[in-house]
Amino acid sequence: MDGFAFSTDVRIRFAETDAQGIAHHASFVVWLEVARVGYLAAHAGGYQAIRDGGVEALTTEVCVRYHAAAYFDETLTVGARCRDVRGARFRYEYRLERDGELVADGYTLHATVDRKTYRPTRVPAWLADAVARAEAPGE
Amino acid sequence: MDGFAFSTDVRIRFAETDAQGIAHHASFVVWLEVARVGYLAAHAGGYQAIRDGGVEALTTEVCVRYHAAAYFDETLTVGARCRDVRGARFRYEYRLERDGELVADGYTLHATVDRKTYRPTRVPAWLADAVARAEAPGE
Amino acid sequence: MDGFAFSTDVRIRFAETDAQGIAHHASFVVWLEVARVGYLAAHAGGYQAIRDGGVEALTTEVCVRYHAAAYFDETLTVGARCRDVRGARFRYEYRLERDGELVADGYTLHATVDRKTYRPTRVPAWLADAVARAEAPGE
Amino acid sequence: MDGFAFSTDVRIRFAETDAQGIAHHASFVVWLEVARVGYLAAHAGGYQAIRDGGVEALTTEVCVRYHAAAYFDETLTVGARCRDVRGARFRYEYRLERDGELVADGYTLHATVDRKTYRPTRVPAWLADAVARAEAPGE
Repeated sequence: MDGFAFSTDVRIRFAETDAQGIAHHASFVVWLEVARVGYLAAHAGGYQAIRDGGVEALTTEVCVRYHAAAYFDETLTVGARCRDVRGARFRYEYRLERDGELVADGYTLHATVDRKTYRPTRVPAWLADAVARAEAPGE
Repeated sequence: MDGFAFSTDVRIRFAETDAQGIAHHASFVVWLEVARVGYLAAHAGGYQAIRDGGVEALTTEVCVRYHAAAYFDETLTVGARCRDVRGARFRYEYRLERDGELVADGYTLHATVDRKTYRPTRVPAWLADAVARAEAPGE
Repeated sequence: MDGFAFSTDVRIRFAETDAQGIAHHASFVVWLEVARVGYLAAHAGGYQAIRDGGVEALTTEVCVRYHAAAYFDETLTVGARCRDVRGARFRYEYRLERDGELVADGYTLHATVDRKTYRPTRVPAWLADAVARAEAPGE
Repeated sequence: MDGFAFSTDVRIRFAETDAQGIAHHASFVVWLEVARVGYLAAHAGGYQAIRDGGVEALTTEVCVRYHAAAYFDETLTVGARCRDVRGARFRYEYRLERDGELVADGYTLHATVDRKTYRPTRVPAWLADAVARAEAPGE
């Protein structure tokens, strides 16, 4: 997806719909996570590599704007890019499309903590470097 | 909860936790909905009354800020208040506390649509009135 | 509920419904867990007490039979009883009712494991005793 | 997967894990549904075709046996086969594997109902035929 260093497809499950006949709005929050995990697998060795390095990434803020309803069995493309890695914090931005139509967009904020003490710890340099490479304009 | 026209308790389910050992961040989005539904039951005859009136309320935006981790079997109090009812739109604001400590806060935006055509339709007057009464300073 | 040592109410959340307009069948599996956790809180000091004792209870089998559809905002009563505590295994049985009408029933099987090694370990004697007391005919 | 007319992969999402550090047992019930939907897409024109034909398929029973814990980011292969199509009922059987190792198995029972009246109605002949072809020994 143009402007996003990573994108992945999600197929809407029946369990993710609700009695309005559409995908429930909380389902989108899970799809953002699926895209983040895919981004880290593609660009930074996977989320487990971060955990293995003794670091856990917490989600500190989630915002999603819904532009169109989405329905059972549709395939959405979720674009993700990572921004503003600084100190113990980073930010992801997302765009969800169905055949090029904007369905939702949003962002999440994250904080890295020591996996044992859960105290804030800087984003590991190798991870910040991997993100910088993934997000470099030339990519 | 001070400053909120409605509050309800949610007990964190094991299914709502994740492998970080905490309540998953998407669970909070569901709890906001539980509070909205409770608010409408307490102040406006219940969500089903809105649907029975031919109106569906869509969620158009969700934002949650997480201030502290929450854990299995804890009880959180979710305060909800309704703001800015105008035209076909309204806004809810939330505060989640554990024994008075701020755990999360956030807001959601909603649009009312005709239940058959899914086209925007004004918030019914009886509902806007019910919200105005619930949110009146003297209450 | 007659014949059940514990029962609790669950109110069906909108997020638990699906595009058939009914509660999604996977939601019931979560409600069984809510009843188990409530049972252990009422009769055995809570699930956390088991974990604090170094034991984790895994779910090894789940069966649910659905007898009637359930809908958003309905309140279901979930009865739970514990059976066949032997060695490292135990069994729960459930009945879900809406105003006395059978909506679903089922059972789950569980195995106790050491919390560190995840190897099977006998159900702690204090827990087996607590269950025996809760399930005693005179109760 | 040997003995199954359809199989699909699911990658375990972080939201599907729980505080035991493993995939929550209710997540498996959703994966069975993903496999059913995939089966119908591969062999019978998709679930939406059934709904478009005025029929809804309800789940009347779910049983899952868990043989091994599954973890975040693992890929499970879910095999599905359809059995015992008769009258208004049919049965699915499943096997979940991780690199050939049995992780879980189970079955679901279903009933076809008229989409408007929700009264039992025979499995449409075209659907029964499509299943018979998919499950034919020569396939």
